[in-house]
Amino acid sequence: MKSREIHLNAYLKGAPKKENYSVVETELPAPAEGQVTVRNLYISVDPYMRGRMSGIKTYIDPFKLGAVMEGGAVGEVVESRFEGLKPGDHVMSMLGWREAYTASGKAVQKIDTSLLPPQAFLGIAGLTGLTAYVGIRRIIDLQAGETMWMSAGAGAVGSAGIQFAKAMGANVVATAGGQEKCDYLKTIGADHAIDYKATDDLTAAIRAAVPEGVDGYFENVGGTHFTAALNTLKQFGRMAACGMIQRYNDAEPASITDNLTFIVGKSLKIQGFIVSNHLDIQPEFIKDLSNWMMAGKITPAETIMDGIEKAPEAFTGLFAGLNKGKMLVKI
Amino acid sequence: MKSREIHLNAYLKGAPKKENYSVVETELPAPAEGQVTVRNLYISVDPYMRGRMSGIKTYIDPFKLGAVMEGGAVGEVVESRFEGLKPGDHVMSMLGWREAYTASGKAVQKIDTSLLPPQAFLGIAGLTGLTAYVGIRRIIDLQAGETMWMSAGAGAVGSAGIQFAKAMGANVVATAGGQEKCDYLKTIGADHAIDYKATDDLTAAIRAAVPEGVDGYFENVGGTHFTAALNTLKQFGRMAACGMIQRYNDAEPASITDNLTFIVGKSLKIQGFIVSNHLDIQPEFIKDLSNWMMAGKITPAETIMDGIEKAPEAFTGLFAGLNKGKMLVKI
Repeated sequence: MKSREIHLNAYLKGAPKKENYSVVETELPAPAEGQVTVRNLYISVDPYMRGRMSGIKTYIDPFKLGAVMEGGAVGEVVESRFEGLKPGDHVMSMLGWREAYTASGKAVQKIDTSLLPPQAFLGIAGLTGLTAYVGIRRIIDLQAGETMWMSAGAGAVGSAGIQFAKAMGANVVATAGGQEKCDYLKTIGADHAIDYKATDDLTAAIRAAVPEGVDGYFENVGGTHFTAALNTLKQFGRMAACGMIQRYNDAEPASITDNLTFIVGKSLKIQGFIVSNHLDIQPEFIKDLSNWMMAGKITPAETIMDGIEKAPEAFTGLFAGLNKGKMLVKI
Repeated sequence: MKSREIHLNAYLKGAPKKENYSVVETELPAPAEGQVTVRNLYISVDPYMRGRMSGIKTYIDPFKLGAVMEGGAVGEVVESRFEGLKPGDHVMSMLGWREAYTASGKAVQKIDTSLLPPQAFLGIAGLTGLTAYVGIRRIIDLQAGETMWMSAGAGAVGSAGIQFAKAMGANVVATAGGQEKCDYLKTIGADHAIDYKATDDLTAAIRAAVPEGVDGYFENVGGTHFTAALNTLKQFGRMAACGMIQRYNDAEPASITDNLTFIVGKSLKIQGFIVSNHLDIQPEFIKDLSNWMMAGKITPAETIMDGIEKAPEAFTGLFAGLNKGKMLVKI
């Protein structure tokens, strides 16, 4: 069985370019004892992967050059010599940007697709949803009746977080780039939707929507968004810093207006987090998510590109804001 | 009885100037029933007062114009018609920049000067010491064996905090401006003393002293110190943001290098605080401080100017870094 996969050719400086990736066709071995062969249905592209493409060790190792890029994927077992998995089973793996693979059965996780479609496990019911949940529940500790600002509201984490915050009884102001996305934010429940591209004073735009300011800010963007957040957070406000996509492709450090004294003056708390350090919250997440889904409060949101060769384009599209909800590549 | 006091004439924009203050002589009334007359021994000048001189409401009201400036003071009762206070008793008040006053006995707090001199209640045993303690114990949650960076180490809060952190068993790197202050930092126990004025790369200087980085950073300065802190904090590092004195006299917002993505990448926690929101920790503070003092681990540190008319100069001196330890005005 043949599989096409995406390799990283060279580490990136600045924006990702086409020549950094290549499509390589391989012949898969039949599964040995303890192995399975899986045909992927969807693969996930995520902003955090940009860090792994820089060749610098952060909280996670860089991608290996000339090898398949790792990342979340869901697929269907086609052949199994691993006890507990049979053809037709759906599985999730971190085995990345490839059409199919043969691997140890221990490297995959069986998923229950009776309630949710397989691709939801890459989105709202997977690490994406869990990321939103950790930021809102554990870092911001959002209370019913409070106001939360979700940045990159139309993104994968953002669109999940807006729905979670609404389900928790909060007032939600969400930002995104462009009118089309703002219309979308309304459909997933945001009380206020602000097109940050249509204003050169984001602080004023947030204040116009929520004059009292915000109790919590979910940071996905950085830069001018961060500045506006410090301006608009109330006393004792909390910021969950999940990502700063505006900064990831900087080749040189940018500069920013220094309004950091608000951290002192308003007794703010700003906390960065990586979802993998908070996996202990998963049972609570699954319980809340199930209740919210049964109450009809959650709509999975996806943008889908077709074909493994589109994976680099889908990834680059994250930075251009091409996605509404979770960006997936369908195999 | 006559008393000279300092009035604020006009709110400040930029650095404090002489003409913003005046010395006014008043005649004190004799105490009525329930009142005391107190001759001050020392008054306190503190960086946070800069905020109250701006005329902008933050967590505390602005100073009133044409009235005596409020602030911590310790003095001796000279006449009392308040039960529980008698001539010769030492008291602390927030009644400010004046030589003496007549006020309700309820506006002053009797202090026990059997173990400590009266002025220590404006410094290491007062709100200054408590501020250092809250930042280190509650916000940074410093553990024995960890490394803490204290900024403005020769200042009032800094010099207290260095001693507290050492008493807790931490490794302490401290920064201050000038060789003389750095020599002083060594005398109060800092393991590493760095003159930030002698380097144009504070990050490199911190790394040279503590190559592994720092677990906790106590922020008193802001600006380039903040940037260097994000660079040198380890994964899961904590910053207690107590003040940003470098910024307080800015007439226009400054800009800063944007290395805020470290908040995400290293899962940092940054928390601003105002000591008055943490007074519940006082009993624990007094207990620890007493133990440390009896063990000979604490040296109160003060810089003293003479005469009430020197109060504005002492205050302005805080921003020029004229003080080692707590800046006091002796009456």
